[in-house]
Amino acid sequence: MILSALLTSVGINLGLCLLFFTLYSILRKQPGNVGVYAPRLVAQGQSQASAEFNLERLLPTAGWVRTAWQPSEEHLLSTLGLDAVVVVRIFIFSLKVFTFAGIVGVFVLIPVNFLGNQLSEDFSDLPNKSLDSFSISNVNVGSNRLWIHFCAAYVFTGVVCYFLYCESLYISSKRIAYFYSCKPQAHQFTVLVRGIPVSPESSCGETVERFFTEYHPSTYLSHTVLRRTSKVQGLISDAEKIRKRLAHLKLSTQSEQRFRRDGFLGIFGRKVDIIDHYERKLGDLEDNLRMEQSSLGKQEVPAAFVSFKSRLGAAIALHIPQGVNPTEWVAERAPEPQDVHWPFFSSSFIKIWIFKLVVVVACVSLTILFLIPVLIVQGLTNLEQLETWFPFLESILKLNVVSQVITGYLPSLILHLFLSLVPPIMIFFSSMQGYMSFSQIEKSACTKVLWFTIWNIFFANVLSGSALYQVNIFLEPKKIPKVLAEAVPSQAAFFIAYVVTSVPRIVFFGLLGVTYFFLAPLILPFLIIYYCMGYIIYRNQLLNVYSSKYETGGKFWPIVHNSMIFSLILMHVIAIGIFGLKKLPLASSLIIPLPILTLLFDQYIRRRFLPIFKAYPVECLVNKDRADENDPAMAEFFDKLVSAYRDPALDPLQYSRNTDGQNAPLLGAAEV
Amino acid sequence: MILSALLTSVGINLGLCLLFFTLYSILRKQPGNVGVYAPRLVAQGQSQASAEFNLERLLPTAGWVRTAWQPSEEHLLSTLGLDAVVVVRIFIFSLKVFTFAGIVGVFVLIPVNFLGNQLSEDFSDLPNKSLDSFSISNVNVGSNRLWIHFCAAYVFTGVVCYFLYCESLYISSKRIAYFYSCKPQAHQFTVLVRGIPVSPESSCGETVERFFTEYHPSTYLSHTVLRRTSKVQGLISDAEKIRKRLAHLKLSTQSEQRFRRDGFLGIFGRKVDIIDHYERKLGDLEDNLRMEQSSLGKQEVPAAFVSFKSRLGAAIALHIPQGVNPTEWVAERAPEPQDVHWPFFSSSFIKIWIFKLVVVVACVSLTILFLIPVLIVQGLTNLEQLETWFPFLESILKLNVVSQVITGYLPSLILHLFLSLVPPIMIFFSSMQGYMSFSQIEKSACTKVLWFTIWNIFFANVLSGSALYQVNIFLEPKKIPKVLAEAVPSQAAFFIAYVVTSVPRIVFFGLLGVTYFFLAPLILPFLIIYYCMGYIIYRNQLLNVYSSKYETGGKFWPIVHNSMIFSLILMHVIAIGIFGLKKLPLASSLIIPLPILTLLFDQYIRRRFLPIFKAYPVECLVNKDRADENDPAMAEFFDKLVSAYRDPALDPLQYSRNTDGQNAPLLGAAEV
Repeated sequence: MILSALLTSVGINLGLCLLFFTLYSILRKQPGNVGVYAPRLVAQGQSQASAEFNLERLLPTAGWVRTAWQPSEEHLLSTLGLDAVVVVRIFIFSLKVFTFAGIVGVFVLIPVNFLGNQLSEDFSDLPNKSLDSFSISNVNVGSNRLWIHFCAAYVFTGVVCYFLYCESLYISSKRIAYFYSCKPQAHQFTVLVRGIPVSPESSCGETVERFFTEYHPSTYLSHTVLRRTSKVQGLISDAEKIRKRLAHLKLSTQSEQRFRRDGFLGIFGRKVDIIDHYERKLGDLEDNLRMEQSSLGKQEVPAAFVSFKSRLGAAIALHIPQGVNPTEWVAERAPEPQDVHWPFFSSSFIKIWIFKLVVVVACVSLTILFLIPVLIVQGLTNLEQLETWFPFLESILKLNVVSQVITGYLPSLILHLFLSLVPPIMIFFSSMQGYMSFSQIEKSACTKVLWFTIWNIFFANVLSGSALYQVNIFLEPKKIPKVLAEAVPSQAAFFIAYVVTSVPRIVFFGLLGVTYFFLAPLILPFLIIYYCMGYIIYRNQLLNVYSSKYETGGKFWPIVHNSMIFSLILMHVIAIGIFGLKKLPLASSLIIPLPILTLLFDQYIRRRFLPIFKAYPVECLVNKDRADENDPAMAEFFDKLVSAYRDPALDPLQYSRNTDGQNAPLLGAAEV
Repeated sequence: MILSALLTSVGINLGLCLLFFTLYSILRKQPGNVGVYAPRLVAQGQSQASAEFNLERLLPTAGWVRTAWQPSEEHLLSTLGLDAVVVVRIFIFSLKVFTFAGIVGVFVLIPVNFLGNQLSEDFSDLPNKSLDSFSISNVNVGSNRLWIHFCAAYVFTGVVCYFLYCESLYISSKRIAYFYSCKPQAHQFTVLVRGIPVSPESSCGETVERFFTEYHPSTYLSHTVLRRTSKVQGLISDAEKIRKRLAHLKLSTQSEQRFRRDGFLGIFGRKVDIIDHYERKLGDLEDNLRMEQSSLGKQEVPAAFVSFKSRLGAAIALHIPQGVNPTEWVAERAPEPQDVHWPFFSSSFIKIWIFKLVVVVACVSLTILFLIPVLIVQGLTNLEQLETWFPFLESILKLNVVSQVITGYLPSLILHLFLSLVPPIMIFFSSMQGYMSFSQIEKSACTKVLWFTIWNIFFANVLSGSALYQVNIFLEPKKIPKVLAEAVPSQAAFFIAYVVTSVPRIVFFGLLGVTYFFLAPLILPFLIIYYCMGYIIYRNQLLNVYSSKYETGGKFWPIVHNSMIFSLILMHVIAIGIFGLKKLPLASSLIIPLPILTLLFDQYIRRRFLPIFKAYPVECLVNKDRADENDPAMAEFFDKLVSAYRDPALDPLQYSRNTDGQNAPLLGAAEV
């Protein structure tokens, strides 16, 4: 790709960006749209939209940027929780890293690269210069200038590690502080126990009661046995649909619509009142539902939420193996009550295990199948290949604008379309894995999507671009640095375009930035712009739009850490290969300590900080428990705790059959 | 190697075996030798040797075999502990596996192999037949008889997994039963805490006391802060040496020996009484020692043994992270008091971590350096090569007996000599890793030696034997099955000889047996004989000789499990290669599910049984604690527990300076 193609791409995006910015700043000010642009505030009753018209409403303004910028971290923490703060911190961290990288890249590396003449192009014609002349490919083979790149790799790695350390320290201390400051919550006192060994002569509930009063006499509070409610949930959602339809019918006043013939296709037979018909149907369903609910007592699953009188009590049940058979009485952290994913609940050790295997196989298959769209996209960036495949396009592709749009914009657009299908599929996979909560499902899906993206977008593009179907090289690890060193720089142009045209992918962009930092520093300014915009937009979204369903306490930070370390190691492997290709074997060998040092740093961080993201220590638990002892509100909290983990499908029907309005309280399960 | 060379080897070993057997059965009956052949019984005062002479004492008898055979497992358990029982169970397990393998191998596979004519040798001359004609190499390429080997691989894997399951079930249940049956022990109530954050204004002991009374108020009992005692221990061992010398001198009555000139080389100067001289020296040392001991109070290490009032209390401190900083207050299982390895104690998180890295590097270096003797040994089995290196040997090597001894016996003897150096080195490495107990050091050294053996004896021999220095293939995983399939069968002869001439290597022999089961089943009869003899000899040793320093409760069983699974997978990889080489691609593909199924089985066992070998569950801890509550002896036990983990170097000097006998009570540290 040449520079002018990139500029076309930047231009298109800049235009679109301005358009959306203007539209957004106008539309958000219309009172009717407040439910779309600030649903969070509406839900909390904080929206103060005035209905009166003024001209300012039609002018694009940047006031929302100021509003999003202003709130302090303490304000975010108190109103939005720790997760929101950690998201913002990820942007700050990325900005720090890439500002440093950008300064080094733009003011040191790009000039060095540009002064090389390996690609021996005409210096004068800047717009038609290939982007590769700004990359390391342009530095002469054997040139001592490559030692600048060598130093940059060392310094950059050091700086990233330093920022990672600071950020881990900051976030982990915030996490502890947040734990101390928040109110007692049901999930802190509760564990989910699976694999309860039920004997034929006693019920599951009795077994749980007996076991925990026997072995946790001083801390055991209560338990809720889980039941198979998928049938009841089906009935509830059926009833819900009919209820909505009924409400809709009652609102429509045309009487001829109320009647329908009851025979074949509604054409023959006698006329019946449809409202009557549906009401009878609803009545039947509800009777059915009540019968099912009453028989649920027998359909126990050998799993239960067990609550304790203290956080330490729950931690003891969680951390120490309970029963003699390690596959029985398996305790795991309970999710928040509103976060429980009721329908897909499976309890057996073997079942969960088999499902996990199935999911692994499915993920691998999806990854392989996804190579097909990737290959098509790759075809688009190689125009010659496209002309060979579709000869009739030749004349169109000769047009300058068309070829620039196709090579600069279309490939990543198509990729985005296909990629947008991946997250829902991954969420489906994760929900099959036996996770008990939406947060776990989403976290697991996030990790899957991240690795899928890294593999499919990065590796598949890199490898198919340079030498189609080189997957074989992963069976010959010795050659990996060489192959990557040949392939990765040649795809720099594609990834610069990808960043320019992309929807946000916070963590994956980090990978791109780190990997291409010393190969093609031209990517860095775009990354910085992206992170700046992302910072403002996410703050706006967090403050006005997103309403978090659960709070993990920043548990997803380790994902960022892992991906950053992976990126650094990948950069080092590529560096080893690059210096080899550029006939600087000494630099190639001297890079080797760098990944080793990075892995040691990673190990240190893993031991020093990551345990805090997994479990709270005794010190915190005891302090918090003790602070609660003097709190008179705790008695009420424990009363609520006993019934906090009740399956909503077991609740008696909550809506009255005569409610007509759309805003009647729905059932809990329907809300989920 | 030809059959007659193997038979020479068998003959030599049979002769040596009979000789040793006869000598042993006579010598052990001599009353003077009872300290050598039954030290365990002597130590326990159970030896009932009579001094009177009878003829029976000079005749070789097999009575000791009966004595070793008779005791039941319950008897072993009650007198020797669980570890001894598990050692015996390993033999029983191996016998079960290889009896099955031997029946299949000898009656099915050997005839099939022998009937092939791939190696096209003369059928009539049995003694000169190469051992390879009994191996799979002799089966014709593409022959359908190979499907018999295919079935054997599947059936054998199934049987091994079944036996592994049964044995894991049996041993884990024994482990729980043993826990219930044994008396309260100090290490069950104690944890070792490292990384205590000592502030300048308070001592380490105060910090520990404050932390545990704050966060474990109901269960905390006492603590013992560790001190740097290596200097004191040096003084104690010096004093010990002088004391022994003094005792020896006092026994010798010749007065001229008592005097020596005090000048140059003991020739000039005035005569002095040596006893006087040493007594003065000893007095100085003891004064020095007392001074050092009294100043030890200040040399605290930020680590302590912390004891609790219940086993559950100790488990809570062990399993749940204690402090906000995960590198502080790190708890680990305390060893038994007599098992503590005092001198090498290091406490800092970073220090231990760096030492671990150093040890890894050292182990890898040792493994690489060890290739030198392996290559020499390999030269001996290739006689032609030896003749090329040392032409003057040609005439000697022409002699039939010499060449048979050299190819059949010498290589493994030399290997054994070199290998005998490895365990002490590995123990030294493990003691550098910061382990706190002899048992951990020895377990870690055992694992190191096992993998060292597998790598150096198995892989290095296999690969250097077939194609020197093929280590490169491990960088090209796809080719591994093919290379192994070419290399492993060709070394069958060496390993048959190795087993025939070997000192015991229980676990490694299991690997050889499993790997060569369907390649060269001729190894199996020798393995069965070995395990039968081992069974009797180890029982005899356990009952009469070994006195265990510590009891791990069968914690080393997982090592056997891991090595067995590794062996199976190795066998499958080789099978894939072999069927490929033999032009039976269908069989080669159909083997692939087998390693996958084996790994799934391994995962299942890991979850089902191995946690029991790591920690006791709450159920057991609470039951045992409760049983103790009614025991009046517990008060006394807790009194002892407070001082159980006192460093012996801190004890006041225990021996009286006037004791002359050799059996005077030594200091605790000297015993260790």
